Amino acid sequence: MIAVDWGTSSFRAYRLGADGTILATVASPRGILSVADGRFDAVLREEVGPWLDAERLMLLSGMIGSRQGWREAPYAPCPAGEPEIRAALTRLDFDWPGQAWLAPGLTCRSNGVPDVMRGEEVQILGALDALDRGTGLVCLPGTHSKWVRVEDGRITGFQTHMTGESFAVLRQHSILGRLMPAADAESDPDDQAFAAGLARARTEGGLLHHLFGVRSLGLMGDVPTESLPAYLSGLLIGHELAATVAIVGPVHLIGNDTLTRRYGQALTLSGRVALPMAPDRAAAGLHLLSRGL
Amino acid sequence: MIAVDWGTSSFRAYRLGADGTILATVASPRGILSVADGRFDAVLREEVGPWLDAERLMLLSGMIGSRQGWREAPYAPCPAGEPEIRAALTRLDFDWPGQAWLAPGLTCRSNGVPDVMRGEEVQILGALDALDRGTGLVCLPGTHSKWVRVEDGRITGFQTHMTGESFAVLRQHSILGRLMPAADAESDPDDQAFAAGLARARTEGGLLHHLFGVRSLGLMGDVPTESLPAYLSGLLIGHELAATVAIVGPVHLIGNDTLTRRYGQALTLSGRVALPMAPDRAAAGLHLLSRGL
Repeated sequence: MIAVDWGTSSFRAYRLGADGTILATVASPRGILSVADGRFDAVLREEVGPWLDAERLMLLSGMIGSRQGWREAPYAPCPAGEPEIRAALTRLDFDWPGQAWLAPGLTCRSNGVPDVMRGEEVQILGALDALDRGTGLVCLPGTHSKWVRVEDGRITGFQTHMTGESFAVLRQHSILGRLMPAADAESDPDDQAFAAGLARARTEGGLLHHLFGVRSLGLMGDVPTESLPAYLSGLLIGHELAATVAIVGPVHLIGNDTLTRRYGQALTLSGRVALPMAPDRAAAGLHLLSRGL
Repeated sequence: MIAVDWGTSSFRAYRLGADGTILATVASPRGILSVADGRFDAVLREEVGPWLDAERLMLLSGMIGSRQGWREAPYAPCPAGEPEIRAALTRLDFDWPGQAWLAPGLTCRSNGVPDVMRGEEVQILGALDALDRGTGLVCLPGTHSKWVRVEDGRITGFQTHMTGESFAVLRQHSILGRLMPAADAESDPDDQAFAAGLARARTEGGLLHHLFGVRSLGLMGDVPTESLPAYLSGLLIGHELAATVAIVGPVHLIGNDTLTRRYGQALTLSGRVALPMAPDRAAAGLHLLSRGL
C-alpha cells in the first residue's frame, strides 16, 4: 500500500509491504500550501507515479484532508482509537484503479471550546505499541504542539498550543526579531539562554509581559542578541509547559530531533520525565488503519 | 516653545504658549520608522518649519530618542519624577538658534529583568494633576501597553505587555488571520465576542493554547469568523489583565478612544474601576519639563 503524510509545509510518502515494512520513502517540501489551484492530483502523480501503477490501496493523513486541502474529511470526535478513526475514513475521488482514503482528524472539547488535530492522531496510532497498555501522555511539539491523553489505545482528549507558530511570527514579524541575528535559532542550541527563558516563564508577569522582556534584555545588554532566539524559544516552551495541566507520569515525545531535545530539556528541568519516541510514526499508523480495507 | 511627541509610527508637534496653552498642533504619520537615512532634521523642518523661526526652545519625547531615532538619549532609572527626568534630558545637536532637548525614557527592573519606556513617562508627567496626591496606577494601552505605578508624583515602577503588537502580528501573519475578515477589527466593537475572549482568558490552559482556540472556534463555527478579531483582542487583553499583579484601587487609562473603551470594559467586567483620562498628555508633560531650561 501507499501511505501519505501530507501536511501544511511538507509531503512524505511511504511504500509499505503487507506487514507494514517501509519499502521506499519520498519526502519533499510540497506541502499543501505550496500546491497551486488545487492541483493535488498532479503533485501526487509527480511524487509517487510509479507506485500508483503497482499498488491498489492508498491512505492519506494530515492537512490534505482539511478545508484547504484536497477534500475535507470531517473530524471524528474523541474518544477515538483505531476502530473509530477507521470508521471515519473519507473516500477520496481520484482517477486511479485503486482505492484512496483520507484520515478524518479528531476534535474534542474542553471548557466548551473545541480543539482539533489532523495527522497527529495517525502518528499516535503508529506509536501505540510503545505505550504501556496503550496508555500515556504524548506530546508532539511543532508549529501547533499537541498534548494528547491516550487511554487503552484510544485518544480521550488533547490540547493544542500555538507555540512554534508564535515563535516564528514573533521572530519574523515583531519588534523582537529586530534585535536578533538573521540565522536560524535552531542552528545553535544555546542551552543557557534556553534555560533562562524557561526559568523566566515560571515567574509572575504573564507571557505578554515576558515577551517584551526579550526586547529589553537585549536592549540593556543582559542577554547577548545572538542568544535572544533561544531565550524566546525557552520562554514560549516554558509557558506551554506551565499551562499543561496535571502532567502525571512520563511524557512521550514524538517530533524532530531539535524539538524533541528542547522539550526533553524543558521537561527534565521542571522535574518531569521525558521519553523520546521514534519520530515519524505516520506510516505505521496508516498501515494499522488499512487493516480490513 | 515647541513640544514634539515623535513615536515609531506617528509625529505630533505642539506650539505652546508660556503657560502651556496649545496654540497650534501638527500631526502626521511620519513616525521614525518612515524616516529614511536618518533625515530627522529635514522632516522636522518640513513639519514645523515656521515655528522654528519664531521659537527658541524645543523638547522632544518618544522613540526619536531611541537607538533607531535621531540620537540615543540614555534611559533614566526609576523612581523618577519631574526633577529626575529633567536632569536626564539630552541636548540635541540641531542647526537652529534655539535649544533642543530629548527626553530620556525610563528603565526599571523586576525579578532581575529590565523594562523600558520612551515617551509614556512624559505623558504621565502631563497627567499628574489628575492623580490624587500624585499617586495611582496608570495604564497606557497600545502596541506595547504600560502599567505604571506612580507615587507622590514619581514613577516607581512599571510593566510592559506586548499586547497590541501580538494582536497585529498574529492577525496579519499567523494562521489565525486566515479565517478573519480583511477589514480592521476595531471598526466594529463587537462587545459580545470581546467579552467571550476576556472570559476565556480567565480559564486554565494558558495563552498559547487559548490562541489556537481562536482557530478551532472559527473552524467549528462556534464564533462567526467576522467576530474572531474582537475575540482575539479580548483574549489578549484578558491575559494582560490577569497577569498584572496586585491591582489595587482605580486604574487611570491614557490612550485613544477605542483602546480606552476596550480596556475600560475589560477592567469593569473583572470588577475593577477604570478612570479614562484625557488622551495625549505629551504636550503638558513636555511643558512641565521645560521649566527652568
